[in-house]
Amino acid sequence: MTMVGPLKLKAQLLCGGELAMGPGKADLLEAIQAEGSISGAGRKLGMSYRRTWLLVDTMNRCWAEPLVEATPGGGEGRGARVTAAGLEVLAAYRALDAELARAAAAPLKVLQEKLLDAPKATQA
Amino acid sequence: MTMVGPLKLKAQLLCGGELAMGPGKADLLEAIQAEGSISGAGRKLGMSYRRTWLLVDTMNRCWAEPLVEATPGGGEGRGARVTAAGLEVLAAYRALDAELARAAAAPLKVLQEKLLDAPKATQA
Repeated sequence: MTMVGPLKLKAQLLCGGELAMGPGKADLLEAIQAEGSISGAGRKLGMSYRRTWLLVDTMNRCWAEPLVEATPGGGEGRGARVTAAGLEVLAAYRALDAELARAAAAPLKVLQEKLLDAPKATQA
Repeated sequence: MTMVGPLKLKAQLLCGGELAMGPGKADLLEAIQAEGSISGAGRKLGMSYRRTWLLVDTMNRCWAEPLVEATPGGGEGRGARVTAAGLEVLAAYRALDAELARAAAAPLKVLQEKLLDAPKATQA
């Protein structure tokens, strides 16, 4: 979700019936990059390990190359990282979001002239 | 919701905590315009009268002028119409949607190079 003033924009990429990329998955990629593991990223975003893993699995199945891969080795070094393909997809998705926000600015002005800051009381 | 190939775009305008305009409300305005009544529009969209009325009420409270008004008179003539302000907001919202779709085209190409048509089988 990207906010441009009162405008909420959501861009989702579909792959067959599955969601290949969207606001939540982009945040998850960033969290994996920051935390170095799927479990750490899930904790950071307040999601269960199972849900986090399923989101990663979906992303990895929807693109020509996996976006996330386990880092080699066990013990302390065990974790996950965003692949080069994952970083490219993430950057392209963020660029799409930024382009949408830029494009929205002019048509949004017309709407904002009439839009109230807060709703009036109900007429019921 | 606007689809641009595999990309699903959703633009919502917020007014305080309420949703002033979005894909569903824009469709509702068009249905009221076509059907000439709130109940007819609700039937067309498969919504209960109560839900349809609540969406209209929210729209009418979120903008400087009401977007929908009851048509005068009772009996056969009883119904609702989209106001001049409503038609302007609807047109501006559709223009915003179209602008977003245009802006998405170029950044989407980068993503589509890597996006599969259908997901691979799960790795589990």
